[in-house]
Amino acid sequence: MTVTTEINTTELNKFIDGIRPTFESSLKELVDIPSVSMDPNHKKDIEEAAQSAVRFLKSIGATAEVIPTDGNPVIYGEIIAGKQFPTVTVYNHIDVQPADADEWQKPPFDMQIENGVYRGRGTTDDKGPALTALFAAKFAKEQNIPVNIKFIWELEEEIGSPSFEKFLEKNKEKLKTDSILISDTIWISRERPAISYGLRGLQGVVVRLKTGKKDVHSGLVGGLARNPIGELAKLIAECYDAETGEVRIPGFYDDVNRASGTEQDNFVNSGFSTDEFKRAHELTSVRKTKDMKEAAERIWAMPTFEVHGIVGGYSGPGVKTIVPHQAEAKISMRLVKNQDPTKMLAMFTKFVTEKCPDAEVVAEGSLRPYLGEFSGPYNKAASESMKFAFGKEPAFTREGGSIGAVVSMNDVLGVPITFLGLSLPEHGYHAINENYDWQQASGGMKMFVKYFSLVSQIK
Amino acid sequence: MTVTTEINTTELNKFIDGIRPTFESSLKELVDIPSVSMDPNHKKDIEEAAQSAVRFLKSIGATAEVIPTDGNPVIYGEIIAGKQFPTVTVYNHIDVQPADADEWQKPPFDMQIENGVYRGRGTTDDKGPALTALFAAKFAKEQNIPVNIKFIWELEEEIGSPSFEKFLEKNKEKLKTDSILISDTIWISRERPAISYGLRGLQGVVVRLKTGKKDVHSGLVGGLARNPIGELAKLIAECYDAETGEVRIPGFYDDVNRASGTEQDNFVNSGFSTDEFKRAHELTSVRKTKDMKEAAERIWAMPTFEVHGIVGGYSGPGVKTIVPHQAEAKISMRLVKNQDPTKMLAMFTKFVTEKCPDAEVVAEGSLRPYLGEFSGPYNKAASESMKFAFGKEPAFTREGGSIGAVVSMNDVLGVPITFLGLSLPEHGYHAINENYDWQQASGGMKMFVKYFSLVSQIK
Repeated sequence: MTVTTEINTTELNKFIDGIRPTFESSLKELVDIPSVSMDPNHKKDIEEAAQSAVRFLKSIGATAEVIPTDGNPVIYGEIIAGKQFPTVTVYNHIDVQPADADEWQKPPFDMQIENGVYRGRGTTDDKGPALTALFAAKFAKEQNIPVNIKFIWELEEEIGSPSFEKFLEKNKEKLKTDSILISDTIWISRERPAISYGLRGLQGVVVRLKTGKKDVHSGLVGGLARNPIGELAKLIAECYDAETGEVRIPGFYDDVNRASGTEQDNFVNSGFSTDEFKRAHELTSVRKTKDMKEAAERIWAMPTFEVHGIVGGYSGPGVKTIVPHQAEAKISMRLVKNQDPTKMLAMFTKFVTEKCPDAEVVAEGSLRPYLGEFSGPYNKAASESMKFAFGKEPAFTREGGSIGAVVSMNDVLGVPITFLGLSLPEHGYHAINENYDWQQASGGMKMFVKYFSLVSQIK
Repeated sequence: MTVTTEINTTELNKFIDGIRPTFESSLKELVDIPSVSMDPNHKKDIEEAAQSAVRFLKSIGATAEVIPTDGNPVIYGEIIAGKQFPTVTVYNHIDVQPADADEWQKPPFDMQIENGVYRGRGTTDDKGPALTALFAAKFAKEQNIPVNIKFIWELEEEIGSPSFEKFLEKNKEKLKTDSILISDTIWISRERPAISYGLRGLQGVVVRLKTGKKDVHSGLVGGLARNPIGELAKLIAECYDAETGEVRIPGFYDDVNRASGTEQDNFVNSGFSTDEFKRAHELTSVRKTKDMKEAAERIWAMPTFEVHGIVGGYSGPGVKTIVPHQAEAKISMRLVKNQDPTKMLAMFTKFVTEKCPDAEVVAEGSLRPYLGEFSGPYNKAASESMKFAFGKEPAFTREGGSIGAVVSMNDVLGVPITFLGLSLPEHGYHAINENYDWQQASGGMKMFVKYFSLVSQIK
């Protein structure tokens, strides 16, 4: 076997053109399976997605197996070029967020292709990037790039990877690698690629308050009866100032490790713009900020307090004058480096139950924050690969979201982790009408091929 | 024709025993018609209820007609004993609140009879009391009590009687009367009858806040994106202290006409007890109050601020980490004598839009408060009738709820209004598993017969 580290660009372009129909039919096959990990009714779809994944891995000449865990299985595959060569492990997930078909323009689980845009739940998060990396690996294999490529495709990412750390520990030998590549992050904009090196953590909580056995007529009881929605609203207003986003829970910011000067400069120079951010996420207005540095820091490097919903009482049209007998606030805190979810949960619980002793605080999903390096040979390779594929220098930024699996891989596998995302803000991560596109997929294949080639030379 | 003002108790008891099967089958017929005025899908049921009502009125020898209005029709009937005799007009309503069958122990629109308890939506509010008064009038007619009885059965009470005032004005001549009797109010407890003489008013509002076009991933936007649920929670907390119920909108209490010393003494002596109130309404705990006087005043004679629901964001199980793009708070204020709903709405709107200029305030139902006398010949007659029927002195209290029709009748017909309610707190006005019972119905018939007899003598 001859090994190559030079990329034959003509061959690569030919390969990418040729693979497009296969890429598109494979993506459609995968997106059309509603592998929603949050909903137990989709267990069969999870199994079906795992079987599809095995077929795709085998189709490019990788080994492939479905490894059971305490929860959903993990699909593992590998292409071994030779024991003497470096190994890079590509992580993706193929479970998806739920999707309410009524809110979408097109059915979320019947992928539509239109002018090179792929619409459907999971197209950008993260089935599209998974297949982009997969077909890049096929080319790398065909070109004998001297690198071993391992694949980990998770099916519990959207529920916080509850079984993943145990899976890693159990299969530590098999998963041995020199570096990890994650493709599940987002650019600044289509014009501005980005490489993440940090992720926020998360602590979800539900606060329940029950003050009676049934909703009652506000004329009869109003004034004397407690109102659990009103009391939860008060609690929320005591926890944070929704207008500014400032959290008022004592000690909330104590452990925050603020972004360094260099990082802040990078944020400012990243090309991040509030106007572009508003446009991409279809926001009418955003919170006031002093400057671009503060705006960027808020979404990437500062913790948050967020209310996702308040359930209880009357929700139909108009007003029905009942006093609700119970209410539930769905809350989460995004956390940054050094903020420990367990400690933050305890802090929150203490604050809430001191203010309202009969409120019940139920812990939901919990993810530790991650902060890696933004320099070193792997990030250098990543940056070069992005420039090679898209002709633009990437920005080094943090990411505001959370990927629990990253923290686990960092802990258990202990090797450098690099983020090569392909998603754009307007792709609609977790939102309605999620999409991905051939421009990002074709560029992404080039990027991954270049990256495989470059890491094959890292000693 | 001989006229009687003495009641033959033996005859009355015989009549009541004999009428029971007819009362029960009539109530079932009426309750089984889901005459929900809030829901346009029930238009046909409204018509059917009107036709049933006409048949019932005719069956006791009254005239009966369905009078159209701009909204739902009003059923009008009369029993004329003689032009020389006084006229009393009995007001009831036969439209009902919605009922979610899933939450009820038995189907809400298939009345169940069990040990003299009638379960179903509308049994106590207000179909049961309507038929109780109807059969009492049948006896009064048979006994030649020298009083003319007019019946007004409304079909829009639960939506704030939007067409009622115009109906009264249009039919003023026909509706001419010496006094009005309302049977749509609630006792302190089964052991303690009550006669109301005041009703709170109401101003409903919906506050909407929209900050984007779709829910977005809180990892991507959290910190910079506005959170409309968080901002509405803050607004609500600024409007009132949910723990104490104290409203913080400047000027909110300015026009409040506090209950007089005599009234407050009556409240305290009414037999009202917080423990009994909690038990009857199945409340786990209530707001803290200094004493029974404050507790009673709060539900009968003070205005309130109430949140009925906050809609928006995620409402499924657990936590879905989205930033909602819009939210809607459903709010109402109960108002007392001298508080003008229009003025209060303007005050609320100003307060809210100053705090949050892009919040939209939508006016919902509006009802003026009513405060009548708690003395005079009609209240004396009412008190005697209650004692005659139930063997207990009634308390004179105000009622915390609102009946828009009362204010309109007071304005247009301008005659004394008396309240002879039969409902108990545990009957569940507007709540699940609403019920009424034969004990109240049979006692109620005695009470109304005595009242008809007593008012026939008021010059």
